[in-house]
Amino acid sequence: MYENFLENLKSKKHNFIAKAISAIENDTELKAFLLSKIQFKKSTSIRIGITGPPGAGKSSITNRLIKKYRSENKTVCALLVDPTSPFSNGSVLGDRIRINQFYDDKEVFIRSLASRGSKGGLSYDIDTIADLIDFIGFDIIIIETVGVGQIELDVIESVDSVVVVLVPESGDDIQIMKAGLIEIADLYVINKSEREDADKLFIILTNMLQLVKNKKWIPEIIKTVAIENIGIDELYKNLEKHKKFLLDSDGFDFKNNKRFIKKIKNEIVKNFEDSFWTSNRLNFIEDFFRKKKIQKISLSSIIKKLKDIS
Amino acid sequence: MYENFLENLKSKKHNFIAKAISAIENDTELKAFLLSKIQFKKSTSIRIGITGPPGAGKSSITNRLIKKYRSENKTVCALLVDPTSPFSNGSVLGDRIRINQFYDDKEVFIRSLASRGSKGGLSYDIDTIADLIDFIGFDIIIIETVGVGQIELDVIESVDSVVVVLVPESGDDIQIMKAGLIEIADLYVINKSEREDADKLFIILTNMLQLVKNKKWIPEIIKTVAIENIGIDELYKNLEKHKKFLLDSDGFDFKNNKRFIKKIKNEIVKNFEDSFWTSNRLNFIEDFFRKKKIQKISLSSIIKKLKDIS
Repeated sequence: MYENFLENLKSKKHNFIAKAISAIENDTELKAFLLSKIQFKKSTSIRIGITGPPGAGKSSITNRLIKKYRSENKTVCALLVDPTSPFSNGSVLGDRIRINQFYDDKEVFIRSLASRGSKGGLSYDIDTIADLIDFIGFDIIIIETVGVGQIELDVIESVDSVVVVLVPESGDDIQIMKAGLIEIADLYVINKSEREDADKLFIILTNMLQLVKNKKWIPEIIKTVAIENIGIDELYKNLEKHKKFLLDSDGFDFKNNKRFIKKIKNEIVKNFEDSFWTSNRLNFIEDFFRKKKIQKISLSSIIKKLKDIS
Repeated sequence: MYENFLENLKSKKHNFIAKAISAIENDTELKAFLLSKIQFKKSTSIRIGITGPPGAGKSSITNRLIKKYRSENKTVCALLVDPTSPFSNGSVLGDRIRINQFYDDKEVFIRSLASRGSKGGLSYDIDTIADLIDFIGFDIIIIETVGVGQIELDVIESVDSVVVVLVPESGDDIQIMKAGLIEIADLYVINKSEREDADKLFIILTNMLQLVKNKKWIPEIIKTVAIENIGIDELYKNLEKHKKFLLDSDGFDFKNNKRFIKKIKNEIVKNFEDSFWTSNRLNFIEDFFRKKKIQKISLSSIIKKLKDIS
């Protein structure tokens, strides 16, 4: 019954792609069907992560990169990861705000994704959605993140090339270290590089990269002014260079395998949790706290009691 | 054999507190002993979360709050959560950089914590460490986070009062929404409020808070200039007000129970994973990828095969 859906998906109809992503996010029946199709497809997309502090111009870089890849006749999907509000349980940015200048280009698909609060949930969803986009046949998948934190570290595992976007003001040593973005990049971008201190940041990064040891790939530092399209060609060239490096070093297989292992581990935990938390066990916990028995029993005794319940 | 250790801990000897935290982080034998002692202690600390975008002045706010609480004769522990570098597997900020102006005050303990990359690991560790500090007897536990992302959302669950620190430049609607910090705060601080646009941000926040419905606590907005100690008294007063609100509404019990349930759930998954990933199963996975069998077998078949291995 879904075969027709698959055809529409393969011809990149945007509303069908959107439906498929929602199915994955909401764990519907369609998801099971999609997964059964997706999983046997060998990856052919390049996955690029764009991360960095808020205000560094990640969106501009992503937009310019999409244009560049389009001019090289590549099809592009951009997935924008927003932090989730724990209250509304949805993306706080949403699709609405982002101006999609590619809306009439079928070969470009842009979508905001809400990061999930649940453990392991975020990156697992993103990987599955990227697998879907890969399956549909997009050449390039850009995953852009917001802010600095756990999400970013998870996303790094989900991509083949990591681009860290900084601005000259990021120069303060401590701020950069705080941001936790050193050591994770395949390419550094100094955006808004017309500002003073751009050279200072360049030198700081160069010095830091000299400390990187035992690595076959030494990250490049690229100066851009994204809103004026300056430096985007060089960024593109370096992304191609990194792609070649990955091809020559079995890097794509290695990263694909790592993602697959993560998927296996997550799925096994998910299966376990689904079967463990029976209504009897959930009731026991609820009852336990209603009667305020907490503080009188050890964690291990509770867990033992829980396991004894069927 | 650890009873002596416990005494030193209870008398707030900083090197012993540091050792105990390390034991929790590294899952040593000492941890098991500590947990057995900690778990029966009813919580008496107030846990305050300080979060917000990088550069908003969270560290200054934390420092000023520590001083204020000390002037009220309260003992204070500040836990600073840094994003972890996935490569160095350690905190990127570290204890070294932060200047501890309270180093000669035994009643103040400050420590950087590396956030862990593993699923659920971060908040679980922080909760356990906060429980330890609670057990030792500190009145106030401040948990300060860096950046914006999953870590922040996790930390919110770990504290009783959430303070979101913004700066006037945060005023741009979209930037705030991107930051994902709306709806999570019990108190908003507009720091560096001597700058222009502080009033604009105040109005934006006020308008947003009018959309908050069905909530018994309406967040206050407090203007501060932390480096000049302006507004800190008001922040303190509002934290006391929120504490009273929590006391009157069983809020502390509710939050403690939620943390305990999370702990149970995490522990159950941890037990499961520890017992599931036998060396035979890990070998199977490794072997599987070495032989590049990926793409030829479905996720569910692999999981079935794994479960059949003992």
